[in-house]
Amino acid sequence: MSTNYLQSAQELLERVRELKPLVHHITNYVTVNDCANILLGAGASPVMADEAAEVEEIVAISGALVINIGTLNKRTIEAMFMAGKKANELGIPVILDPVGAGASILRTETAKRLVSEIKFAVIRGNISEIKTIAGGGGITRGVDADVTDAISENNVAAVQGLAAGLAAELGSVIAITGAVDVISDGKVNYLIKNGHPMMARVTGTGCMCSSLIGAFCGANSNYTAAAAAAVMAMGLAGEKAYVRMETARLGNASFRNFILDEINLMTGEDLVKGGKISFE
Amino acid sequence: MSTNYLQSAQELLERVRELKPLVHHITNYVTVNDCANILLGAGASPVMADEAAEVEEIVAISGALVINIGTLNKRTIEAMFMAGKKANELGIPVILDPVGAGASILRTETAKRLVSEIKFAVIRGNISEIKTIAGGGGITRGVDADVTDAISENNVAAVQGLAAGLAAELGSVIAITGAVDVISDGKVNYLIKNGHPMMARVTGTGCMCSSLIGAFCGANSNYTAAAAAAVMAMGLAGEKAYVRMETARLGNASFRNFILDEINLMTGEDLVKGGKISFE
Amino acid sequence: MSTNYLQSAQELLERVRELKPLVHHITNYVTVNDCANILLGAGASPVMADEAAEVEEIVAISGALVINIGTLNKRTIEAMFMAGKKANELGIPVILDPVGAGASILRTETAKRLVSEIKFAVIRGNISEIKTIAGGGGITRGVDADVTDAISENNVAAVQGLAAGLAAELGSVIAITGAVDVISDGKVNYLIKNGHPMMARVTGTGCMCSSLIGAFCGANSNYTAAAAAAVMAMGLAGEKAYVRMETARLGNASFRNFILDEINLMTGEDLVKGGKISFE
Repeated sequence: MSTNYLQSAQELLERVRELKPLVHHITNYVTVNDCANILLGAGASPVMADEAAEVEEIVAISGALVINIGTLNKRTIEAMFMAGKKANELGIPVILDPVGAGASILRTETAKRLVSEIKFAVIRGNISEIKTIAGGGGITRGVDADVTDAISENNVAAVQGLAAGLAAELGSVIAITGAVDVISDGKVNYLIKNGHPMMARVTGTGCMCSSLIGAFCGANSNYTAAAAAAVMAMGLAGEKAYVRMETARLGNASFRNFILDEINLMTGEDLVKGGKISFE
Repeated sequence: MSTNYLQSAQELLERVRELKPLVHHITNYVTVNDCANILLGAGASPVMADEAAEVEEIVAISGALVINIGTLNKRTIEAMFMAGKKANELGIPVILDPVGAGASILRTETAKRLVSEIKFAVIRGNISEIKTIAGGGGITRGVDADVTDAISENNVAAVQGLAAGLAAELGSVIAITGAVDVISDGKVNYLIKNGHPMMARVTGTGCMCSSLIGAFCGANSNYTAAAAAAVMAMGLAGEKAYVRMETARLGNASFRNFILDEINLMTGEDLVKGGKISFE
Repeated sequence: MSTNYLQSAQELLERVRELKPLVHHITNYVTVNDCANILLGAGASPVMADEAAEVEEIVAISGALVINIGTLNKRTIEAMFMAGKKANELGIPVILDPVGAGASILRTETAKRLVSEIKFAVIRGNISEIKTIAGGGGITRGVDADVTDAISENNVAAVQGLAAGLAAELGSVIAITGAVDVISDGKVNYLIKNGHPMMARVTGTGCMCSSLIGAFCGANSNYTAAAAAAVMAMGLAGEKAYVRMETARLGNASFRNFILDEINLMTGEDLVKGGKISFE
């Protein structure tokens, strides 16, 4: 079963390279450059536009929209709603990265209001952020998941239950990323074990993952499979990047560059060979 | 004739290193860090300031102003006009990068209004963006030129005609960059064949090129020659960076770093040896 | 005496790694990604939030606050005051990086108003910026210190006097960084000779240093010693990064990555071995 999925992941990636979807981002100014370069490396194209006066037009020419609340402000929040609603009207998939939901009332309420007014194809966050959206009171430490919240082998079943329940409630694919990654649309549940702990020492690996999900959803119609393939590609890139670190005395900046390089170099066959995914 | 130009390009670059012009940017938050580092690598100094309350003072101490509309908003658009008009008053060269003109009414109208109210020393864009400014209805796919718009060996003469006509109309040097680069002030027309296709897989190579043009114009009084030298230096950096990629299995993040490194390492002699420029 | 300090610097760094302080930034969009990655490399965690509606909550969960005025605007200035005052109330250390103070009335007045209304644990700037805050009329060339202002062996005593006087007046640690670095709290005066001239060819080495100071102050209660250790670590990272440049033909982008890598790799023992600090 996993083999079948991996073969479809290969096609999902190849379709990104073939269709080169334009992915509209309303995102934070911290990791935006890496989000743009990871999209270009994957074969897609980024466009960043956050002014209310233009976002409806920009999203209308795009294949997907990524809304990331990492450095939200009143002006850009307005643009997020406008772009999201327009995308819904046009049938363009919208991805939400609720960065730091739980850390401030503004983030929590904006995230909750976004999921209530906009239909998201995929919502990707860490466990604390997703718990916050689900109303379960996740503990968000700034923009990182709280340690007491971390996904591990021990609580996977509970996390899968959370993802599946929220997915069914919202009609969105839920992707909870961490040491292991859980993806669910309420029916199909994927568990991904790619990745490397050092990814937590690079800012924006979560944001980049959400951008990749945008690229995969912009090129493919099965958003559950697309989200899983993007999360797997990101984790595999982290593993491959870490292999480069073992032979040289380098740190987190080089690791960041290698992650981006590995996405650029990644083939569908790499996903088949290196993907660690199971589903039930 | 090309040899003579290349010798002058050497001097143009050396003058950037000698005078270290301060280049004021009102630019997007996606590629701004690379724009700052490419300027420092070239020997110039960047200053980014986009608040209306200070841009007139900042531009007054600068050697050039770069206006890049990549993530424009109402607040920064106001600052662009204030800074541009002040620069015109003071005789400081202003460079326009009309990122995404044609992709939204806001971008198209802002770009057109900027060229009508501010005198630009140089306008650099892809073919779609320049067509939009010229009123010819370019097709802009997000922030990239549409494929049907791409400059190639086959349509160079038409593109040169467009550049020369718009240059004459606006009194600005027009630089249209792509697989080949066309630069014209309405009288002198340069054709540059440096560069590498992989540059399209790095975000901001256009923005960085516009910033370099700012550095060259801040240090030199012949803006046509300065723009051509900057475009040539950028293309040559891309070629040299790609040579580094051939011996290692690396991707677009490493390529981005190598492009910046190559600008930092580039000498006037490199331009003489590697420049591929012709003019008529 | 220097040996004793170096041993305490080792502990100061180790405490950052142990406590992993969350450092709230209200900072510029030019160098923000490098500030985030240097914090992660040092073992701390960054959170960037600049909207008035949330900064009081975000700072309340943080171990330190860094206010950097590099691309200030009216909206973010308001947030700076709100966050700074809240941090003062809660006893959370606040670091100021008065980027470009002296280059515009907006920057000068904002910096002066910040130091009059908020109690800073540490203020780090170049000599021109610190002179501006002290009211002595520094000459700021954009965001860089004016050459006539540069700290050198020849004027160290005068610069130390400036730092000590301002420190005593404001009750803040003053860190003036340049070819040599002067740190003073009005009683203890440190002189640091780590660093490399090539650091001036990388945008944001000052911003990154201020962010590191935030990490060290978030994990340690002696802010004078913490600031000195952070400045020393930054300079030592520059030296170590430059060693990597000597064996390869690379430029300022690779140098930037190596600086970040070196902070990530740096141990307390490296500080003991490589620190060049004296005090009186």
